[in-house]
This record gives sequence, structure tokens and C-alpha cells, in this order.
Amino acid sequence: MTVQIAILGASGFVGGELLRLCVGHPDFAPVRLFGDSQAGAAIDKAHPHLALAYPGMRFETYEESALDGIDLVFAALPHGASQAIAGTIIDRDIAFVDLGADFRLRDPAVYETWYGEPHRAPDLLGHFVYGIPEIARAEIAKTRCVAAAGCYPTATILALKPLVDAGLIDPKSIIVDAASGVSGAGRGLKESTHFNAIAESYSAYGLVSHRHTAEMEASLGATVLFTPHLAPMNRGILATCYGTATGPMAADAPLEALRAAYADEPFVHVSETPPSTKWTLGSNAAHITARYDPRTGRVLAISAIDNLVKGAAGQMIQCANIMLGLDETAGLGTCGVHP
Amino acid sequence: MTVQIAILGASGFVGGELLRLCVGHPDFAPVRLFGDSQAGAAIDKAHPHLALAYPGMRFETYEESALDGIDLVFAALPHGASQAIAGTIIDRDIAFVDLGADFRLRDPAVYETWYGEPHRAPDLLGHFVYGIPEIARAEIAKTRCVAAAGCYPTATILALKPLVDAGLIDPKSIIVDAASGVSGAGRGLKESTHFNAIAESYSAYGLVSHRHTAEMEASLGATVLFTPHLAPMNRGILATCYGTATGPMAADAPLEALRAAYADEPFVHVSETPPSTKWTLGSNAAHITARYDPRTGRVLAISAIDNLVKGAAGQMIQCANIMLGLDETAGLGTCGVHP
Amino acid sequence: MTVQIAILGASGFVGGELLRLCVGHPDFAPVRLFGDSQAGAAIDKAHPHLALAYPGMRFETYEESALDGIDLVFAALPHGASQAIAGTIIDRDIAFVDLGADFRLRDPAVYETWYGEPHRAPDLLGHFVYGIPEIARAEIAKTRCVAAAGCYPTATILALKPLVDAGLIDPKSIIVDAASGVSGAGRGLKESTHFNAIAESYSAYGLVSHRHTAEMEASLGATVLFTPHLAPMNRGILATCYGTATGPMAADAPLEALRAAYADEPFVHVSETPPSTKWTLGSNAAHITARYDPRTGRVLAISAIDNLVKGAAGQMIQCANIMLGLDETAGLGTCGVHP
Amino acid sequence: MTVQIAILGASGFVGGELLRLCVGHPDFAPVRLFGDSQAGAAIDKAHPHLALAYPGMRFETYEESALDGIDLVFAALPHGASQAIAGTIIDRDIAFVDLGADFRLRDPAVYETWYGEPHRAPDLLGHFVYGIPEIARAEIAKTRCVAAAGCYPTATILALKPLVDAGLIDPKSIIVDAASGVSGAGRGLKESTHFNAIAESYSAYGLVSHRHTAEMEASLGATVLFTPHLAPMNRGILATCYGTATGPMAADAPLEALRAAYADEPFVHVSETPPSTKWTLGSNAAHITARYDPRTGRVLAISAIDNLVKGAAGQMIQCANIMLGLDETAGLGTCGVHP
Repeated sequence: MTVQIAILGASGFVGGELLRLCVGHPDFAPVRLFGDSQAGAAIDKAHPHLALAYPGMRFETYEESALDGIDLVFAALPHGASQAIAGTIIDRDIAFVDLGADFRLRDPAVYETWYGEPHRAPDLLGHFVYGIPEIARAEIAKTRCVAAAGCYPTATILALKPLVDAGLIDPKSIIVDAASGVSGAGRGLKESTHFNAIAESYSAYGLVSHRHTAEMEASLGATVLFTPHLAPMNRGILATCYGTATGPMAADAPLEALRAAYADEPFVHVSETPPSTKWTLGSNAAHITARYDPRTGRVLAISAIDNLVKGAAGQMIQCANIMLGLDETAGLGTCGVHP
Repeated sequence: MTVQIAILGASGFVGGELLRLCVGHPDFAPVRLFGDSQAGAAIDKAHPHLALAYPGMRFETYEESALDGIDLVFAALPHGASQAIAGTIIDRDIAFVDLGADFRLRDPAVYETWYGEPHRAPDLLGHFVYGIPEIARAEIAKTRCVAAAGCYPTATILALKPLVDAGLIDPKSIIVDAASGVSGAGRGLKESTHFNAIAESYSAYGLVSHRHTAEMEASLGATVLFTPHLAPMNRGILATCYGTATGPMAADAPLEALRAAYADEPFVHVSETPPSTKWTLGSNAAHITARYDPRTGRVLAISAIDNLVKGAAGQMIQCANIMLGLDETAGLGTCGVHP
Repeated sequence: MTVQIAILGASGFVGGELLRLCVGHPDFAPVRLFGDSQAGAAIDKAHPHLALAYPGMRFETYEESALDGIDLVFAALPHGASQAIAGTIIDRDIAFVDLGADFRLRDPAVYETWYGEPHRAPDLLGHFVYGIPEIARAEIAKTRCVAAAGCYPTATILALKPLVDAGLIDPKSIIVDAASGVSGAGRGLKESTHFNAIAESYSAYGLVSHRHTAEMEASLGATVLFTPHLAPMNRGILATCYGTATGPMAADAPLEALRAAYADEPFVHVSETPPSTKWTLGSNAAHITARYDPRTGRVLAISAIDNLVKGAAGQMIQCANIMLGLDETAGLGTCGVHP
Repeated sequence: MTVQIAILGASGFVGGELLRLCVGHPDFAPVRLFGDSQAGAAIDKAHPHLALAYPGMRFETYEESALDGIDLVFAALPHGASQAIAGTIIDRDIAFVDLGADFRLRDPAVYETWYGEPHRAPDLLGHFVYGIPEIARAEIAKTRCVAAAGCYPTATILALKPLVDAGLIDPKSIIVDAASGVSGAGRGLKESTHFNAIAESYSAYGLVSHRHTAEMEASLGATVLFTPHLAPMNRGILATCYGTATGPMAADAPLEALRAAYADEPFVHVSETPPSTKWTLGSNAAHITARYDPRTGRVLAISAIDNLVKGAAGQMIQCANIMLGLDETAGLGTCGVHP
């Protein structure tokens, strides 16, 4: 079986990563690459690292007729863009994995609160499953539309959900302090992502107002204070998460809760050692640890992922595999490129 | 007036930074450089960047007689070493600024709790003032012995002390999530500071047990859960600090409290913009911001310093300037080397 | 067919990379991992990025009996170590791909000149083929022993050999100015590979005396002045190569010579754009360009590879595939992990 | 004496560096900061690292009347801009140090060859001295207009000029292979200076056609093949230079020629050890070494500078100091910020 794939946003970082991973996928064939800003250009203009794998392919401008014959659409578009095209894809009954924020929140009012504008396709929200396979595998298997989770929420939810579900932490007490590599900010040119702005810089941004907070809160059923930081590295997210313990517990109780939750997961590694983003580079793995601190009565949980793989393209492929009934791990690896 | 200076630990990173800053100090003359592991070697073997400034100087092995004629000792030694030599320096009435942890905690029992061994010179603890000029300028001016604060505590205390003192946050609720450049781990060879272990890596360490916690708690009169991280950069500390607000307040109340506290400080810059470690590189400045988050009822405060300057050598010089009645800013700058 | 593999030096950087690549190889099963310094430790102690792929595997101490049942040995050992064990492997008729320098030079006298000691197994030199598939595919297919080329020579030889062979440049005039990521210096702890020694540092080393010069000269039949540099990055080699043109030629004559030589190569990409090491990260690809400069009468050729893949583990696997009659590209990719 | 200074291009990287260095200069007072793109903004918007040093200062739009009362103009403008304003500055007899390429080449025909357009103020060329104090101190002392040398030429000329002058190398044989930190590409937003384009990337650019070649050739009286590279670091230039020896010589003859030439220079350090860019960070120092290679008959010379200091702002200040009869080293240091 070959799945004919269209990628919207194919010239961006996530687009490149989808293309890289599809090379190793036995069933996925990217056949239409939409990237308006690069339309007409050869693929290696935007992605020189893919030159040998996709000789002769070019980016093109999106138009609806280009979806003829497509089995699966991956969209990695700027915020808001998916609302305009989702209807078409759904009407054509094409499997759809969207990485935008547009369909991640079930409640359009919450969307409006955090995104500052009304949702333009609220009637379509019900089609989408929030895409983190480890917490919604069954629902993903039954849907045609996945709103793949963002990078920060994926790292956070994987670290905290088993602890909230096990009743170990107070869901109203959560603080998430996370750091991301620069690719999370996308490929657009900004002062803040100039090499000289980043090298030797570590700083916080989006104080008390980052939009990904809404996803974390919705998925965890929690109140979250989230502070993202930009770290001088290409890739990786580390989420260091704090919650007030619901009561005294063994020091390793949180770790055991994680181990129990993820015992059969192919992409989640739970260990006592604090993880590094570096272990995940280029892979779909998540590495997680946790502790109870009896001195302060808090639980600490830390997770590391590659923001472009488990936090984006890899998760999209994992969701698509499930949705299409394929081997969930097809095209995806667990080994980071190290060092 | 020329102050004759001996540096213990002169071949390390802090030693090098003391030497660099002394070049621009009108009164400080480093005349004895103790660095046992490099004894006999020319200064540019360990510090090639100082080759033109200290031609012909060499490291030597410490012996007590080498303190003859010395007016001021700077010590940047491994943990524990100062306890063995402080008595001698005090007996000779030489001004002493120590960067070790040995004399930072007033209570030897607290020392033993965090450092895992009894203090070997508890009777000398009373000689030392904990050295952060912004919170203890008057005491420093009256002492001959300063235990300069560590890098993480300096960043944390500068960000939080005015907020605790103003009663804006509950001192029992504090979480400090901080990141450091690699130079904070010192010059010794360890797997964890190999270039390939660090580049593209962001990770936490010392979970719920880092020794600097004790300094933060003692200085703030608080309970602190502290999580340090290692970021892929040479220098810099960013401390992102959280406390539960004692009640509703204006969103900028914490920022105004910081502005009031630091209005006359030469090295502290308070601004609404979240600071970057990069602004401080090579300088003695601290950049701080704060927010109240009405949604979660928390206060967020963030500070950035250069761990080797305001977090080490610069603070040592600032303390020495005060102790010796010199211009407090002599030899110290506020401008980071940027980019 | 499953090839039972033993890896000598399995806990080092190249060992880790061999293990990572074997995960994606349909026929290769690493079953014995020799790494004396880590003997007894679980694989994720040295290679946390491989934790999910090799659960339960441990390093062990090398002993000859451990080679029972092994079909293929990969060795990534310190210089000199292979001379002691090659005989055993050859006697047992186990396929052998060695990354050491020990068997790369055909002439033991040249070895002694550059390595400063007599060769200890000169009679075994004849068993080995110098392992760069693009220039010795047929010989590799017929041998049981490959001495895989080093990282600098691979980059250099791929860039220059077609130009020398086509008579475009004078082989006595060659200058190679190359930069390597830090992983090329190995995992051992050295002052020169401490993060703080490398970040913001670019420097040359091994002036006029780097041992890899001998391989370049032997393979190219040339005289080479080679200057290696260390660049602040994990991986990658860029070789910028200069030769005096044998006469006037079209500006793109060198590029056309490269295109002709590599038209059918699966891992070599020739293009007019100067390549970046970044395009190759984690992949077995080489990206090459060249120019004739009529103003100075020189030819410039530049190649980029990942020093740990095409410059080490990937090349070893490519050679093994050829030697064992497998698909030459099995387990190897052409797409760098980007960004 | 206070020198009233106007800076054109004050919001760029070199502008920021001029401002940082002026803080430590006893006589220099920047009073007008021209930066059209930032006109009206406070200085810390572009230069947050200078917030404490220049409180309240703002950028303004350049207009001629703003030069009233100015004693010295520093210009760090895009290529070509100085040709339009130099006449005004000269007419007003204001001391002028220009960092643009506009007045570096004595011959307008050479300018047109390399810059692809006719020079628009050829009659002013005679006013300018090419600004490298180590090779033109006397001329600088007598002029009112300096065209400060670029970063690559400064590194190259310091390494090679004593060797050419001593007749050790054939001036027609020179190859310069150099690497620069990213700040050399300026502050403008370009794909090529995005953090994700640079981290883990080392690549060449401007093959056989970089404009700085003309300066090198003019100053050295030589033919130069120059290949610049971009290295993943903020600052620094390393120039690795090759020339054919004019005949056999002692291995250290080139080093001795450099030592003799720079014995009395305050900012040049000659040593046998290959230098690193890191030693120079933030300082005005140049570190140089050289070798003769009897095997290939070549001379190798390597120099390291900070591209923004000795390669830009520091050299501008050094030239201004000489021109104004001040202490040549005022405001300038020799110690890099390390690590």
C-alpha cells in the first residue's frame, strides 16, 4: 500500500522533517509539496539536506484541485491557516493531520480567549482528535482528522498526565518551566532568531501568556503557569514541571506512576536519570523522569523530546500510522543522533 | 594606593576572570598567583587570553609565607579548601574574599545537612559577611572577611529578596528554575562538560538536592525548591523564580518593588522586558524583571547575570572595593560583550 | 540473512553511531559489544540515546572466544590497537572493517614515518583494502578486510581524486584546509574538548604534521599540505582543497569532472552551491563543489561530510555491505537531520 | 579633553561595540547616535547590554546639522553609504574614521572591478589612509581621514605582511583560508544568519570572488586566492594563510620575522602555539603564529582576532587615538573574555 501524501507548508522546518521521515517510511509517498513562498523552486533550495532523496521534486502553490488522488494531508501552516482549508479536506474525506493550533482546543471560547480572535470554523472542531497517541490512541484510530499536539504541550502532558491521573499532584498547582531549541520558532526571519541573538543567550518569553498553556490545561484538566524559554540549540524541548503533592508519598512514587503508564509505549523511556534534549535529536522518543521532594511537598517531573519530531513531524506520522491502520512505528526511530 | 593581591585558584575560570578584571582596576595588583596544578607554568598556559597583560607571570604553589606583604586574598578554590586556610589569613589581618561555600552559611548545622560533613572551622563563621553588596553593603564595609555568594543564589536573591521583603510573595512557596552556562561547572575534566555532551543538550541536574538551595533559603528566610539546568553556552545564569502571591495586586506591583529596591544600584537593571544572559556577558550587571499573574495567583521574577562576573569574580571585586573603601565600581563594567 | 556483529570500541562515539545505524539495517545484528572501560555497564550508560533500541544489552571485555559465531567485526579502537587483534580475526575468516589507522597505509615505512613507531603487523597489510567505496568498490567486494578511510581523508579524497585523475590539477601543489566538529577528537576527556574550550573557538592544530596527510597523499598520489581546524560543532567535516590548475580551463570544468565521476553514486551530491556540514548531519552523504579561478590559476574543491557517518560508522557499514554482497545502501540514509 | 563623537550606524553590531568601548575610554563621549532604522528608539532597544551605561540616549536620523560641535565621526554603514557623506565631514574638518569599503582602495579602477560600480567620490580617495596601525601608524598620525581595514584583511595582513616584506614568501602564491563568526555578516535578517542555518554548520561562501581580496592584494602587493567561511560562533576571525617559500629556511624563520615585526606592538601577540579566536573575544588583540614546512616548501601563518574589535570598532578607536594624539591604547584591552 502506498499512501499518496500532500504536505502543506512543505518548505518550512516541519515540512522538511516530514519529508526526511517519509524517506524511511515503507508506505508514505509525498507527491505534492505546497509551499507558497517557494513555489516553483526545487526541493533542495529549501532543503539541501534532502537533495539526494527527492531529486527533481519542486514546491508548488496550493490549490484545491491538487488534492485529487491524495490519501493523506499533512499541514504545518502558520496559525489560522488550517481553518480556511480544513472543510475542503474533510469534504473530500482525505485523512488529515494538522499541526496548527486551529483544531486543538475543543471549546471555541477558550480558543478565542488565548488567540484573541473568534474561531472561524467552530463546526469542524468536533471532527478532530487531539493528537498525542500515548493518551488518545483509540480515538485517533477511529478518526479521519487529528490536531497533532504542539511541542511544549506534548512534553508537558507526557510528563504530567499519569501523575494527575494517579492523583499524586494537585492539578490547580502546576508550574511548567520549559526550554526549546530555536527551530520551534520556525523558519521566518526575526531578530530574535538571528544567530547572534541566540548564541550565548538563554531567556524567557511569552511570560504568563503563552498560547500553549490552553492546550496543557485542557488536556490535563489543570491550571498551569507556563514559562517558555529559548535555549541556544537547534532542537529539543525540556519541560521541567512542578506540582504540589496531594500528600506524602514514597520518593519514587511519581517515577513508578510514569513507568506503569508507559510500560508498553514504543517511544517513551522512563528512567531515574534526568533526561537531556540531546538524547532525542532526530528521533520520536520521549525521555521522562520524576521525583517527590518531601522537603517542599512537591512533585517534579521532567521530559525531553525533539520539538520537530515527537513535538511535530514524528507525532504527525505516528498519528497518521494509527489512523490508517499501519504499524504505529513505521518511519519513526527511537535513537537520537548523538553526539 | 596599590592593593597587593594574592589569588588562590588562579588557574581556574574564576581566577582567570579575576585577573582579567584586575587589568582594568586602578588599584589592584595581582602579585601572587597560586594554582597548584599549574605551579611553575607561565600564566598564558592556562589563560592564553591574558598573554599580553601579564607577561612573565607564573603560577606558584601556595605556602603561607607567600602571603607576606599581601593586602587582599581572593580565593576561588574547590569546596572545603578555604576552611583549612582561612584562619591564617584572618590571623594576619589580610582582607579576604572567599568564593567557596565554606563560610556562606551562618549555621554549621545547616552546612552539615547540605554538604554532608561537619564544618571544620565553625568558630570562624562569625568573621564572614555573606557577600551580595546589594543586600549587605553596610556589613561588607565593616568586615575584613566576605563569603561571596554563589552564582545561582546571587541571581535568585536579587530577583526575589525585594519581593519577599515587600510581602508580595509567600516565602514558603518558592520554586527556582534556573539555567547556567557550562563555565559554572568549572575547568575540571568531566564527561558532563565535554563539548559533545553539551552542544544541543539542555538538561536538569541535582534534582531537589542542589547545595545552593541552603544559601537561597538562609538569605531569603524562605523554603525553596531549586532545579538547576545546564545550557549549551559558555556563561550566564538565568533564574526563573516563582512564588505564590500573598494576595491580589497590580500586574506591575512586583516590577515596581524591584525598581524601588534597585533605583540607586550601579549594577542592577530592572525592566519589563524579560532579560537574556547574553546582555551580561563579561559584565557585572544583573538584569531583572517580574510579573504578577492574576490567573494563577503567582508572581514570576527573572534575573540574568554572568555567572563568572556578578556570580563570581566581579562580585568578589565589588565586595573588596567596598571592604577597602574604594569606589565600588572600580574595575567593573555594566556592558555585556554583545553579540 | 542476519549478520552477527561484534563491535570493538562500542562505548565510543563511533561505536554508538554503528549501533544507531544498525537499528535501521535489515540484516545487521550487533550481538557483542566490547568496550573495556564500560565493561558490565548497560548500553544506555554510555549511549542514553539508544535506551529504547537495545534494552538490556551490556558492554563486555574483549576476549577472543567472544568472537565465536561472529560474522563481522567492526573495530573503532585507539590507534595501534588493531595491529594486536587483526591476526586473530583474519585467522578466523571473520569479515573485518577496521576504522583504525593501522592498516590504511600499504607501505610500513610510510606508517613509521608518520606514526613514529614501526608497524607491528606488516605482513597483514596486504589483506586490507583502503575503504572508500567510491574509489575502491570492486576491491572491497573481493576482500574480507577493509581499513575504512579516516574522516579528513574521505572528505579530501572525494573532492580531489576526480580532479587529479582528470589531470586538472598538479598533484604536487595541493593544500587542504579543513575543519572538523569536535566528535572527531573522540570521547576521551581532554582540556581541548571541554565545552568552554570550544564554544566561540575556531583554531588550527597539528600544523604541517597531521597523520592523515599520509593517507591523502597515498590515495591521491600527491603531495599535500594539510591543516586541520576544530570548529564549535558536534559533527561535520568541511575540506576546502586547493590545487594549481594544470592549464587554463572552463570555470566549471572541475565541477563537470566531479559530476561525471559521481553520476551513479548513491551518497555523493555534486552541486554548484558551496556545501555545509549541516546538510550531512547523521547521514552518509557527501556534498561536493568545485571551481576554477582563472585569476589565480587555481582549482578550488570543497566537500562536506558527517565525520561520524561517511567519515566513520556509515562508511564502515557501506564497506561491509559491499563486502558481504548486500545492498550497498542498507541501513544508510542520504538525508541530514536539519536543522 | 573630551572628544565629542557622532556614530553613523550606531544601532548595528559595530555601532554597539563602539559604544561599549567608549564607556571605558577616558576621552571619548558619544553624543549623537545615528541609526535611521531605529530613529527615536532608546539605545537599549537595539543594545540591551548597554542599558546601564547610556541611560536615556536615543537614536536619531542623520542630518548634516547634527554634526555641529562634533570632533570625530565613526561610520559603520553599509557599503557605498560613506561616499555620499564623506565630503561633508571632510569639509567641516571633522576627524573621520570610516569602516566602509568605500575609501580603502587607492585606485578607483580596482574599486570598480571588485564592487561592480564606479566610485562616486574618487577625488576624496587621497584624503584617506588605510587603517591598520601596525602597518601605517605614522600616516594615520598625520591624517584626518582613516579608512579602517576590514576584518578579514586585518587578520590576513597582520599575519602575512612581515613575511612578504622579509622576502620569505612569494607574493604571487598566496592562499588565504579564513573563518568568521556570524557577527561579521551584520545585523540584517538573512536566511544565512538564522540560528538554525548556522548552528552545526560550517561552510564556505563568496568562492574566488570575495571583495576583501582586493584590500589584501593592495596592502600586500600580492596575488591572493581568498576563501571565507562562516563558523558557528558569535565572533572571531581566524585566517590560515599559505605562501610558497622563496627558498629553504629554518622552521622558525617565519615566526622570528613576526616576532621582530611586532616586538613593540601593544596589541599583537606572536607565539608558537596556534591561536584560537576565543582568546580575543571582546579585546583588541591579535594572536599570530607561523611555520615553514620543509616537506612542501610552504610557509603557513595563522592569525586570530575579534572581528568586531581589532577587525572593526577597536581598530577604529585605535586609529582615532593615533590621529588625535591620544594614548593609542586608550579604551582598548588586550584580554579576551574567556571562557
